[in-house]
Amino acid sequence: MSAPLADQLDIVIPTIRNLDFLEEWRPFFQPYHLIIVQDGDPTKKIHVPEGFDYELYNRNDIERILGDKAWAISFKDSACRCFGFMVSKKRYIYTIDDDCFVAKDPSGKPINVLEQHIKNLLTPSTPFFFNTLYDPYREGADFVRGYPFSLREGVPTATSHGLWLNIPDYDAPTQMVKPKERNQRFVDAVMTVPKGSLYPMCGMNLAFDRDLIGAAMYFGLMGEGQPIGRYDDMWAGWCTKVICDHLGVGCKTGLPYVWHSKASNPFVNLRKEYKGIFWQEEIIPFFQNLSLSKTSTNVEECYLELASLVRKGLGHIDPYFSKLADGMVAWIEGWRLLNPPAASA
Amino acid sequence: MSAPLADQLDIVIPTIRNLDFLEEWRPFFQPYHLIIVQDGDPTKKIHVPEGFDYELYNRNDIERILGDKAWAISFKDSACRCFGFMVSKKRYIYTIDDDCFVAKDPSGKPINVLEQHIKNLLTPSTPFFFNTLYDPYREGADFVRGYPFSLREGVPTATSHGLWLNIPDYDAPTQMVKPKERNQRFVDAVMTVPKGSLYPMCGMNLAFDRDLIGAAMYFGLMGEGQPIGRYDDMWAGWCTKVICDHLGVGCKTGLPYVWHSKASNPFVNLRKEYKGIFWQEEIIPFFQNLSLSKTSTNVEECYLELASLVRKGLGHIDPYFSKLADGMVAWIEGWRLLNPPAASA
Repeated sequence: MSAPLADQLDIVIPTIRNLDFLEEWRPFFQPYHLIIVQDGDPTKKIHVPEGFDYELYNRNDIERILGDKAWAISFKDSACRCFGFMVSKKRYIYTIDDDCFVAKDPSGKPINVLEQHIKNLLTPSTPFFFNTLYDPYREGADFVRGYPFSLREGVPTATSHGLWLNIPDYDAPTQMVKPKERNQRFVDAVMTVPKGSLYPMCGMNLAFDRDLIGAAMYFGLMGEGQPIGRYDDMWAGWCTKVICDHLGVGCKTGLPYVWHSKASNPFVNLRKEYKGIFWQEEIIPFFQNLSLSKTSTNVEECYLELASLVRKGLGHIDPYFSKLADGMVAWIEGWRLLNPPAASA
Repeated sequence: MSAPLADQLDIVIPTIRNLDFLEEWRPFFQPYHLIIVQDGDPTKKIHVPEGFDYELYNRNDIERILGDKAWAISFKDSACRCFGFMVSKKRYIYTIDDDCFVAKDPSGKPINVLEQHIKNLLTPSTPFFFNTLYDPYREGADFVRGYPFSLREGVPTATSHGLWLNIPDYDAPTQMVKPKERNQRFVDAVMTVPKGSLYPMCGMNLAFDRDLIGAAMYFGLMGEGQPIGRYDDMWAGWCTKVICDHLGVGCKTGLPYVWHSKASNPFVNLRKEYKGIFWQEEIIPFFQNLSLSKTSTNVEECYLELASLVRKGLGHIDPYFSKLADGMVAWIEGWRLLNPPAASA
């Protein structure tokens, strides 16, 4: 089994339960280091199948490591995964939910998600012009007639957003309306989300380059004590996309697929989501229209500027957004604590 | 064989040779009306297989019908196809090259291109936000979590750009570097090209709504007497995309595939293309940065405004662009002649 970049990639898994799902991933994940972020009650013992190389952080660890910045890491919500992004010392992160399993391609072959994500991350993105034959760097494909030659080198790829067969990532209303819908279509494509377009980035099956975008991969304030849930990855998606656009790096979506086994409870989801469903109608235009200043030239600077834009531009919706802006600042402080310039240089 | 909208769609075919390729399309195209635009020498007799309902226009017909505006229709170049768009009285157009044949889907079933293009045109587009599971209106798919509900009605679809198996639509340099490359990947997806992104629109396998975008589907001045060729569809693609973005209608790309049988000669292509290869480096930023005024509220007004922007913004590259701007104006005059307001209302 090929295990590319095994020494340069950490797999981050947020969980509240035993990680038996790793058994199915063993041939693919065992060569890699895992960072497990334990969600909720720190006294609970999480069982990790034998043979995996891992470190595990619970709430007590997060408090100990981040001190007065620990509040910025969500509690009782899978948004806590971003602590794993911060504490990693590797260049690349892959994060996956513990209800996702190995999918098969149309020929019946199990899909090596890491191999595909790494391919996506190590080949350039093309955010400035749309290529109708999809990823031009893939074997058997190229740029089509009319694609400007000056853009064919592409730009570095910051994120690789993978998809899901079986249970699609729907919101609660759609889950309720279409309880039996399953995603059975394998679309054999990877593409760059064009510059200026936002996309709904799901955290279930996601890889990224920590050097290029890690400092913006904050999953916000969700779960216990917060007015919303299930917008952690969306928040990170909006923030990272506008920063990638500003810095001229790319976000890809498409392959690889995972098999998403179980739909979460739509009634619980609706309670978590409903404010987000209203709020996103204002938040998305805010992100679509914002522009970062030329003086913000790295991810941390961009993220701090974004925090102040969020405070000014979204605070009127709900006091939550001022707290979220504080959280964004605390996140960067924590990031800098764990990733001092010398170490990341 | 299903033949949707048979009374509302014309198939436009530019050709210089006998249309024997129609034999393979017979089960799919016979229910439709064909508009054949004969490219080049009008004395040559084009043979159309029996049983097809068609009208055929040669250069003499174009001169007779358009009079002093006929110069705007390219001579000895497949760009002349746009005369067929203008002379049609139907709402929808499908245009195809005579070296394109019926492709098969991965199950081996022949692909009904018109059925898929019509599906694309009759379902909405989603240019304002990216849906990671592709066309949300397709059976088995929907909008994913985080897609704003206010955008889920979508907008009308103006164009449907289909793709090609076998010979990909490459420029001459890429053809020369990769003479053996064939497109063998069937990507089972249709997507909207996001607002603000340009794409290389190929005229080989293209459908559109004449009411929504027909007046901008001018294929420019190419072929004999002109400094470039093979940029006819690209020109139409750039123009229609910025106008669709301005008017809030959509452009889709993806399914259906045709089987493109024969690569054109890369040496001939290079001679036709090489100025375009330089020029597009300036033309594309011009289109990316232009904005149409709020007072241009229909396609014809937008197109006339674009003509004047082209004259001002691209004239410095080459005197050709002033002539092209004149051609754009003459095209609209011709369009109005053949499509008077009462008739199209």
